[in-house]
Amino acid sequence: MNQDFIKPDNWSIIEEDFDANRVKASESLFSIGNGAMGQRANFEEQYSGLTFQGSYIAGVYYPDKTRVGWWKNGYPAYFAKVLNAPNWIGINVLVNDEKLDLFTCRSISNFRRELNMKEGWLGRRFTATLQNDIKISVETKRFMSLELDEIGAIEYSITPLNSDTKIQFQPYIDSGIVNEDTNWDDTFWNTLNVSHENNQAFIQAKTMKTDFYTCTFMESKVFINNNSVLIEPNINADANYASFCYPRQVKQGEVYTIHKFGGYTVDRNHTKTKLVSAAKTALKKATKLGFQALLQLQKQAWAGIWDMADITIDGDVKAQQGIRFNIFQLNQTYSGKDARLNIGPKGFTGEKYGGSTYWDTEAYCIPFYMTTKDQQVARNLLEYRYNHLDKAIENAKKLGFTNGAALYPMVTMNGEECHNEWEITFEEIHRNGAISFAIYNYYRYTGDYSYITEKGLEVLIAIARFWHQRANYSKAKNKYVILGVTGPNEYENNVNNNWYTNYIAKWCITYAIENIERIKSDYSSDFTRIMNKVQLSNAEIEQWSNVANNMCFPYSEEQQIYLQQDGFLDKELITVADLDKSNRPINQKWSWDRILRSPYIKQADVLQGFYFFEDHFTEEELERHFDFYESFTVHESSLSPCVHSIQAAKLGRMEQAYQFYLRTSRLDLDDYNHEVEEGLHITSMAGTWMSIVEGFGGMRVKDNVLSFVPKIPKQWVAYSFKVNFRNQVLKVNITQTGTSFKIDGDNELDILVNNKQVTVSPNSLVTV
Amino acid sequence: MNQDFIKPDNWSIIEEDFDANRVKASESLFSIGNGAMGQRANFEEQYSGLTFQGSYIAGVYYPDKTRVGWWKNGYPAYFAKVLNAPNWIGINVLVNDEKLDLFTCRSISNFRRELNMKEGWLGRRFTATLQNDIKISVETKRFMSLELDEIGAIEYSITPLNSDTKIQFQPYIDSGIVNEDTNWDDTFWNTLNVSHENNQAFIQAKTMKTDFYTCTFMESKVFINNNSVLIEPNINADANYASFCYPRQVKQGEVYTIHKFGGYTVDRNHTKTKLVSAAKTALKKATKLGFQALLQLQKQAWAGIWDMADITIDGDVKAQQGIRFNIFQLNQTYSGKDARLNIGPKGFTGEKYGGSTYWDTEAYCIPFYMTTKDQQVARNLLEYRYNHLDKAIENAKKLGFTNGAALYPMVTMNGEECHNEWEITFEEIHRNGAISFAIYNYYRYTGDYSYITEKGLEVLIAIARFWHQRANYSKAKNKYVILGVTGPNEYENNVNNNWYTNYIAKWCITYAIENIERIKSDYSSDFTRIMNKVQLSNAEIEQWSNVANNMCFPYSEEQQIYLQQDGFLDKELITVADLDKSNRPINQKWSWDRILRSPYIKQADVLQGFYFFEDHFTEEELERHFDFYESFTVHESSLSPCVHSIQAAKLGRMEQAYQFYLRTSRLDLDDYNHEVEEGLHITSMAGTWMSIVEGFGGMRVKDNVLSFVPKIPKQWVAYSFKVNFRNQVLKVNITQTGTSFKIDGDNELDILVNNKQVTVSPNSLVTV
Repeated sequence: MNQDFIKPDNWSIIEEDFDANRVKASESLFSIGNGAMGQRANFEEQYSGLTFQGSYIAGVYYPDKTRVGWWKNGYPAYFAKVLNAPNWIGINVLVNDEKLDLFTCRSISNFRRELNMKEGWLGRRFTATLQNDIKISVETKRFMSLELDEIGAIEYSITPLNSDTKIQFQPYIDSGIVNEDTNWDDTFWNTLNVSHENNQAFIQAKTMKTDFYTCTFMESKVFINNNSVLIEPNINADANYASFCYPRQVKQGEVYTIHKFGGYTVDRNHTKTKLVSAAKTALKKATKLGFQALLQLQKQAWAGIWDMADITIDGDVKAQQGIRFNIFQLNQTYSGKDARLNIGPKGFTGEKYGGSTYWDTEAYCIPFYMTTKDQQVARNLLEYRYNHLDKAIENAKKLGFTNGAALYPMVTMNGEECHNEWEITFEEIHRNGAISFAIYNYYRYTGDYSYITEKGLEVLIAIARFWHQRANYSKAKNKYVILGVTGPNEYENNVNNNWYTNYIAKWCITYAIENIERIKSDYSSDFTRIMNKVQLSNAEIEQWSNVANNMCFPYSEEQQIYLQQDGFLDKELITVADLDKSNRPINQKWSWDRILRSPYIKQADVLQGFYFFEDHFTEEELERHFDFYESFTVHESSLSPCVHSIQAAKLGRMEQAYQFYLRTSRLDLDDYNHEVEEGLHITSMAGTWMSIVEGFGGMRVKDNVLSFVPKIPKQWVAYSFKVNFRNQVLKVNITQTGTSFKIDGDNELDILVNNKQVTVSPNSLVTV
Repeated sequence: MNQDFIKPDNWSIIEEDFDANRVKASESLFSIGNGAMGQRANFEEQYSGLTFQGSYIAGVYYPDKTRVGWWKNGYPAYFAKVLNAPNWIGINVLVNDEKLDLFTCRSISNFRRELNMKEGWLGRRFTATLQNDIKISVETKRFMSLELDEIGAIEYSITPLNSDTKIQFQPYIDSGIVNEDTNWDDTFWNTLNVSHENNQAFIQAKTMKTDFYTCTFMESKVFINNNSVLIEPNINADANYASFCYPRQVKQGEVYTIHKFGGYTVDRNHTKTKLVSAAKTALKKATKLGFQALLQLQKQAWAGIWDMADITIDGDVKAQQGIRFNIFQLNQTYSGKDARLNIGPKGFTGEKYGGSTYWDTEAYCIPFYMTTKDQQVARNLLEYRYNHLDKAIENAKKLGFTNGAALYPMVTMNGEECHNEWEITFEEIHRNGAISFAIYNYYRYTGDYSYITEKGLEVLIAIARFWHQRANYSKAKNKYVILGVTGPNEYENNVNNNWYTNYIAKWCITYAIENIERIKSDYSSDFTRIMNKVQLSNAEIEQWSNVANNMCFPYSEEQQIYLQQDGFLDKELITVADLDKSNRPINQKWSWDRILRSPYIKQADVLQGFYFFEDHFTEEELERHFDFYESFTVHESSLSPCVHSIQAAKLGRMEQAYQFYLRTSRLDLDDYNHEVEEGLHITSMAGTWMSIVEGFGGMRVKDNVLSFVPKIPKQWVAYSFKVNFRNQVLKVNITQTGTSFKIDGDNELDILVNNKQVTVSPNSLVTV
């Protein structure tokens, strides 16, 4: 826990002490990225203490050979690893020939690090006395440019404080890097060529196996007291390294500065033989602008993002800082420009969890991007799955399914499954449902039916086919059952008739049929095209219907609740409140079998269904199920509290909703789980956003109308957020006394507030 | 499959062709051992083709660090590996300075290998022309001495056929060996010292981590035409190797022979500083006798074993060969002398399956040893578990159990769990039941109650405590349930109320209470001693009773069968007969999730309960359950067919019983599973024995009386076996027309034959 380490601030993440034990954690928290690449907050200069080096390029991964104790048939052969990419940030600094290294300095004072979220840069300053007694002050700033997304920029300034000093800046690029997380200690990168000219250097390298071609590059320039000086660098290059050395005798009090531009060009965006020339083009643009002008553009770009995505909270600095941190990281991770990319659970902040795409994207992230970005961004996330449909069909085929049934992978980089626990990979099939649900959710929100006619219906059909085949008829129950699954609650494996899975399976089939019928009647040429492709007969649809209409839903008449799965009530039903605290967290204290047979729930399971399909249930039903299941929920997933917060808010239990909210909004900043050094929980950050907008704000879309049931925690004075709804931007401001709405542009918007219609007109504030 | 490779023979395993592709398989099949050590049939001389080298020392293992994809809490940190031990058999042979190597010879003819099971030796002969055109004939014989169980002996003779030839024998010992099966490519052996004197060499080595100290040794002597010749050897020794070289110019037609004695002394039997002198003592005994006399003792020792353990089958050579192969291997693996040893599933024939002890020992092996050996042998197997009781209590504690509850490990070497699949390690808890059952079974057979009073009751109590704690009360069912288990059918994981598990759990509690009461009333000092140790109160016993008396047993009223587990009837109940053959074996053709949700059964599960507790059910019940469950059984475990064979025989379905029998008796000889090269299925061999004695012979013990219901497959003329029952040896001979009984010694024995009493008197044949 570092509750007192990060300083409360409305707009910045700030630490003011150097603590070698916290370096790895801060390297995660102060990460920067621009959607195309990301960088942990590793120091530019040498650091010999404990550090977790990480530079990441979106979409570049490595299929690490799967490692298991006992092989099970059907396991994927590979597990995609997020790759540490060649280092572009490094600048060795020699002070009278001694390497600057914060781990070995005689003393460090005045240390401060700031992640300025408003403007999108990372700054650092300190005063240090080296072993050679030279005292210096250092100030650095760096950012990953949103304007030029192949470019990162660093400004690194050093001032000798107690004598004239020889300073050498040695900016370098290095492809001789390693991953923390590797199964077999494989080398991941094959360096193809190292070259340099003038003040530029280039390393061309490709990933092993996947053959992603990249060029890592840099160009540097030095200054004395902000005046450019020309120093002919000494060059040092070997098989996977290139550095320049800019030596300078610096007078006491003078400021010696280096500007380093670096980054990556990749063959996703350029011909692989043109990566060096693409790098030169990028460098030319960057150097032409220079560091300050590029930084100015960075501030403008972030101002644009914040203008739409910001949530303000008055009266609670920590909450304000927490929600902005989440919004900032989500925007650093995924810009939405490229349908080939997705939102990794650790973003660009760590290696853990191979693969970039879990059902988190559909269940948690799409609402955030849909509401705060142009609708094309959410559509890109849907298209990502459409583009992987063939692979999902192939994946299902490997598991014995036929006839175009698709099972989307649990984790993926390229559409192939890359997870290797049978309980998850083979059994956590509800993920398929979230992919259909996201299509529905997108259409519900945007009204853009063209996605379904053009692409979505094929996905819906392939998923419906999967559920039809995956269910089997139980003569004993005279129902269709779905056996051997893992639900969203991963603390149960191989259960039968997980209510959530069965419910979403039925819904997927019903929704597919509904859309088939609509397209048949309203978009006949699309219908013909799609039917020719998927070869779907009426007889097959009837079989689907039969499964959907006769699906088994375990239910307790006595308790009047749907059962999480068959036999749930056979468990020893001791609530979490009655469980001795020494047992928690159970995932650290208990063996796996004990967890499995316990009633404890890791994250919303039945309640996830009540969240997705809220309108299918009465508020009394929600309350009954919430009271029952939440009492057994240990929330040991970062994805758990948000759904519960939304539901508690809906039930008018604002204090409980607020407590759930607190558990997510500063999860990483306060390092609740003692693991932030591994990276941030990016996808759960979207859940935090949902807790405010859907939970406290009560935002929904009902029959094409935006609806709010605004509430506010008593701890806050006010909060506000903006919603981009069908190309109209609505600003919502909620105080303890009322809610005001304001709309941009020239058109009015009818909304529902507490189920009553309200018209918001341009340029006038509506207060309810 | 090698059905035509092994020649049918009543007493020997014979191959008559050299096929490099079959070398590894034959290395398994022709393995030899003496209970203390074992040796795959690797060639003595150099062999550069594919080979799987294996020399094994009983009780010597290595805890390989567990490797899993995703760590689960509670996994054991180590997985015991059966270790390839230093090589003692090697003899390089140089023929005019060319190394003899069957893989590189110009031609090979007259190749023959024989494992003579009657006399307990392995022989080999061949004629070979080397690359240098020298033609030689070779004849070898080796055995692991039963008389001196630290000694193996080799006779290796070579005759130049086409010219006078310089022959060099280079016997060696070598601790620079590797394991085929290793998780991390660790080195397992640390060589401490290599020494030699006269014609003897010694390598002292200890295992890493476990610190088992061993001495590998050898002594050699050479002969021309059977006359000893003195050749001063050239010595070659390095850090983990010692060889002697005996060169000799051998005339065409002369026979040059080496006798090599070698083997191991280990610190289980000697002080670790005295291993070399113990080796010298063993060598002195062996060389004093010489090869021929020691071989003579070997034949006598095997004659003694066969006299008691042999099963004869008239009219079916392959069946005769099969059953003798099984009996031979069981006797090679475990002699019963040492309660610290047990019966590894691969014996001394391979490395697969770390650990030496599964529930196979209790469920399948004890009846064989109990019936064909002195009762002390079975008692030693029980004591093995008693000696591990503290570890089993510790193991249960790690999983959250308290108060002296014991969970015996799924696999072990030293009492600690060393398996790492949660589905098995944590959930396949029925193994605990087999350990209590073996105590009951031993007492039922031997009448020796002293084991229970001295040791067994503590085990019964600790196991009863486990079941009491492992069950939980289900309000919904108003019964005690056992959730989240894997039954004997490992094609189901994490099921609820596996009938077999629940049944044996109840039985374990009931049997423990029954013995507590008996000991309380009849052995009061034992009672006091034990109760003081285990601190068991009447209140606790009452709680046990409550669990046992209210245990849940899933049952179908409609089908009148006990359900393998809750929800079994929800499955898609397509019988194996109706399943397209292309799907089989399902463990190779299907992904794991598909296997789990299918109704297919790997090995007897409900029927295992009907086997153990036969008397609790009527024959009609057995028939109903057999018909139902066998129809879904795929028998993809080597332990499956035997139980079904016994039950089919009981139901009078002799043709079906015989078909099941065939699937086990030549499983390895005919290599049904294409895996014999990995080693033999030792523990399932005991099941084959049971199929004949308990199945066809219908042997049981009923109220202290031996009972038979003899049947005979129509394919056989006759078969016979012997039974050591309470120190009386009964010979049973069954023909198509009747059964005859003969008893050794001076006392008569009352038995039941087809439920009628028969008195067998000494020296008279009783025919029924």
